Amino acid sequence: MRNIKMVVQYDGSRYKGFQRLKDNDMTIQGKIETVLCKMTDEPIEIIGSGRTDMGVHAYGQVVNFKTLSKDSTSKIQKYLSEYLPEDIVIKSVEEVEDRFHSRYNAKTKIYLYRIDNNKVCNPFTRKHSIHLEKKLDLELMKEASEYLLGEHDFTSFASSKSKKKSNIRTIDSISIQEKNDLVEVYIEGNGFLYNMARIIVGALIDVGHKKITPEDIKTMLENKNRSLSSDTAPAKGLYLYKVKY
Amino acid sequence: MRNIKMVVQYDGSRYKGFQRLKDNDMTIQGKIETVLCKMTDEPIEIIGSGRTDMGVHAYGQVVNFKTLSKDSTSKIQKYLSEYLPEDIVIKSVEEVEDRFHSRYNAKTKIYLYRIDNNKVCNPFTRKHSIHLEKKLDLELMKEASEYLLGEHDFTSFASSKSKKKSNIRTIDSISIQEKNDLVEVYIEGNGFLYNMARIIVGALIDVGHKKITPEDIKTMLENKNRSLSSDTAPAKGLYLYKVKY
Repeated sequence: MRNIKMVVQYDGSRYKGFQRLKDNDMTIQGKIETVLCKMTDEPIEIIGSGRTDMGVHAYGQVVNFKTLSKDSTSKIQKYLSEYLPEDIVIKSVEEVEDRFHSRYNAKTKIYLYRIDNNKVCNPFTRKHSIHLEKKLDLELMKEASEYLLGEHDFTSFASSKSKKKSNIRTIDSISIQEKNDLVEVYIEGNGFLYNMARIIVGALIDVGHKKITPEDIKTMLENKNRSLSSDTAPAKGLYLYKVKY
Repeated sequence: MRNIKMVVQYDGSRYKGFQRLKDNDMTIQGKIETVLCKMTDEPIEIIGSGRTDMGVHAYGQVVNFKTLSKDSTSKIQKYLSEYLPEDIVIKSVEEVEDRFHSRYNAKTKIYLYRIDNNKVCNPFTRKHSIHLEKKLDLELMKEASEYLLGEHDFTSFASSKSKKKSNIRTIDSISIQEKNDLVEVYIEGNGFLYNMARIIVGALIDVGHKKITPEDIKTMLENKNRSLSSDTAPAKGLYLYKVKY
């Protein structure tokens, strides 16, 4: 069997998330598998680097799948681009060694969160960012983000629905910048608990709006209690930006 | 009567263009006037700096209107933002002197055209740019754009439906740059004939794809014949970027 790795970009607005659900549900995995099964006549199952929630986007989701097909990678890419909806795009297709696994081999992931912080909401980015009219203090947000770097128990920053054995994760970097009229928050880490990226952004927004201080982030981490931290930021501003191997 | 000037941003995707048509047609002018009439109980008519076609967007369309209303400019802006659809945004509202006329007083206009020139189409910009898979030679396009600068008879670059007395216009500058993964073409001029910005972009694309040479642009101008020049680039990549007074 050949092992095929693909980088996938998608606008998650219309979808119930990455993971396949029931047959007719709109999911990214479901859409891609349907086309691959049609192309190969095999029961293809793709493995994603991780799930993305309903409404979350991706610049660089990575998937892999096994197939007996002898089609060239460029033919596979062309077929997918013909039959996939326009909001799911295959950026690259390559054959990789048999043991490559898009989830187990991922070293770090980078999430991006986009905030339109202008007085009025930009109509061109409104579906792929959140609009916050009240000005954010980016310097305070940067100061707050320092407390999250390194290895921590992120229980306070995970949905209470998260059922992982350990909530200890490492955040390598958080970058906050203003670019093209949007505030962009990039978070790189070795693993993200359920809703973790969105709760971190929610907390940073509270800091930026001076509802809490940067030091409160430290207290939140120490509390290890989801109910004492900030709200989860909405899905439509979040992108799985890149997966590093 | 007070004279109110507003800067308007809109995603033209759903609209039949700026200019009001029949009562129930989706137009930018129609939508704004409906809200203003409701707010003021007057038969408000807005004057735009110019029409934009079906599917064309705006970052900075300028309109003005006369009203007896005593509402503050911020109250007007708030009311419009509450009742306008999300794809029409009022960026600013100010009271101006009585003789200000958004069309007659416009000195120059800047149009922006956006091209996604990546191998695969970016799903986040696909509704507000055109996708050209084949790489454009930007240097050739820049060379070609030089021929269009200054005062010329732009008959070759106007829709044959254009019915102006004179087709002589002045282009002050054309800037072509790659930004955020998009090729952006800015065209500033003292007036634009019907479809002129889109036909100029169509010709520059032909140069960028080496279908024609930069010198052919000079010949096109001299021909004064629309049927001998390039195709009109699609509406969805075009934005009325700014109007200068």
